[in-house]
Amino acid sequence: MNISIIGAGNMANQLGLALLQSGHKIDKIYNRTYLSAKTLAEVLNGQAVSDIKGLSPKIDILIIAVSDEAISEIVAQLSKKKWEDVIVMHTSGSISSAVLEGFSLNAVFYPFQSMTAGQELEFRSVPLLLTSKNETVLTKLKQVAVTLSDLVYEISDDQRKVVHIAGVLANNFSNHLFVLANDLLEQHELSFDILKPLIRHTVEKLDTMDPLASQTGPGVRGDAKVIIDHLKQLDQVPELYEIYAIMTKSIMDRHFSTPLKVQKEK
Amino acid sequence: MNISIIGAGNMANQLGLALLQSGHKIDKIYNRTYLSAKTLAEVLNGQAVSDIKGLSPKIDILIIAVSDEAISEIVAQLSKKKWEDVIVMHTSGSISSAVLEGFSLNAVFYPFQSMTAGQELEFRSVPLLLTSKNETVLTKLKQVAVTLSDLVYEISDDQRKVVHIAGVLANNFSNHLFVLANDLLEQHELSFDILKPLIRHTVEKLDTMDPLASQTGPGVRGDAKVIIDHLKQLDQVPELYEIYAIMTKSIMDRHFSTPLKVQKEK
Repeated sequence: MNISIIGAGNMANQLGLALLQSGHKIDKIYNRTYLSAKTLAEVLNGQAVSDIKGLSPKIDILIIAVSDEAISEIVAQLSKKKWEDVIVMHTSGSISSAVLEGFSLNAVFYPFQSMTAGQELEFRSVPLLLTSKNETVLTKLKQVAVTLSDLVYEISDDQRKVVHIAGVLANNFSNHLFVLANDLLEQHELSFDILKPLIRHTVEKLDTMDPLASQTGPGVRGDAKVIIDHLKQLDQVPELYEIYAIMTKSIMDRHFSTPLKVQKEK
Repeated sequence: MNISIIGAGNMANQLGLALLQSGHKIDKIYNRTYLSAKTLAEVLNGQAVSDIKGLSPKIDILIIAVSDEAISEIVAQLSKKKWEDVIVMHTSGSISSAVLEGFSLNAVFYPFQSMTAGQELEFRSVPLLLTSKNETVLTKLKQVAVTLSDLVYEISDDQRKVVHIAGVLANNFSNHLFVLANDLLEQHELSFDILKPLIRHTVEKLDTMDPLASQTGPGVRGDAKVIIDHLKQLDQVPELYEIYAIMTKSIMDRHFSTPLKVQKEK
């Protein structure tokens, strides 16, 4: 495919590189800061343009890979008539496809992975979540997506929002728990390295087991003695105390409440 | 070393097997249920005894690998005089070494990994946490520990409790977040497989980055719009709403509050 990109940040870089490496052609790159567009254009063998009007509609796909806040601003600058034969898509997990509804061929193309500057992504194992109400657009995007990744999913706007929330729970919040554990260990002159094998083991288990089945710890054992002991220990750290109590309650509710409910209903 | 084991559960099985494979000799095994002792004894080339008094003190180490609740009960059944030349140790993360203080040579030998029945552990990458007030005991246990694992740590009773709490935070609570994310995805007919690459990526980053530096998501970006939108979406699930709010507040406090405090103190 022949593709132009608006934006020159992490997403534009990673996705652009993956597209180029999969044999697609990058036509033009526009970015608010021209220098960044120029730098990226050199990497992607494309052409940087200093004005958004310099983008040519003689392409298959126009990718809007800018920050969530900037998407509607970019959309306002694009003539709907000019782009009516081109698939116009953004790459955001939290912005609805409705923002693009003025374009006859619109879609969302959401690579579900955290992007870190300078770290090249292994795109083949990045889930690509595609949203479009237009079947022809969807078919065409799927053709592009499978050249990049083995994990291509078709989802609705509502589903994409749910995936985003689930990602925050499973990924951002888990990582924050690692931060809190690290803080606690450091305060007691212990190394975070002690925790790493356990964390790795838990994640490896996800390959073969349901997370519900592989839950361990005092909460799922209903081990009140250990729980009370831990809470007592955390008494001086109100924030950790609160998180410990709420998460433990949630674990116990999730693992013990269903059978009790069933008994009640008898 | 010549070693006897009290208990025939997961810990006794996994640790016993690791010891045997590292060239140690298993003398006798006692368990409340004789049949389990017999089964384990066959695996470990040891001898099952039906009475705790049948254990011989002509060994180097006696391992008490029973549930936390049963430890003191076992200790009460062991004559202090009989075991005065033997290292008597338990394997629990949450029980203090004080429970063994009647024995002249006592210690705690805590393999810090979750044990799943039937799944053999790769002991070389299991952190072994050793506690003893006796330097000679510690030296001897370290000799044993390095034959089993590359990760041997000497810690105090207080530190072991902290490690246990950190493990609950980083491991049990993270896994529960995977459960909650899985629930949410299932409710919207989405596969948990979508999340796995992101989770794996986050854990892989721990090898090269501090968890604090690798935090991503709306909380650390201070992206109020996305956070409010997610909370609105979770309005119907009070438990998830609460966890989302508390974890996000904790992330923002952790990442934004320190510099503010520093400014105030100026």
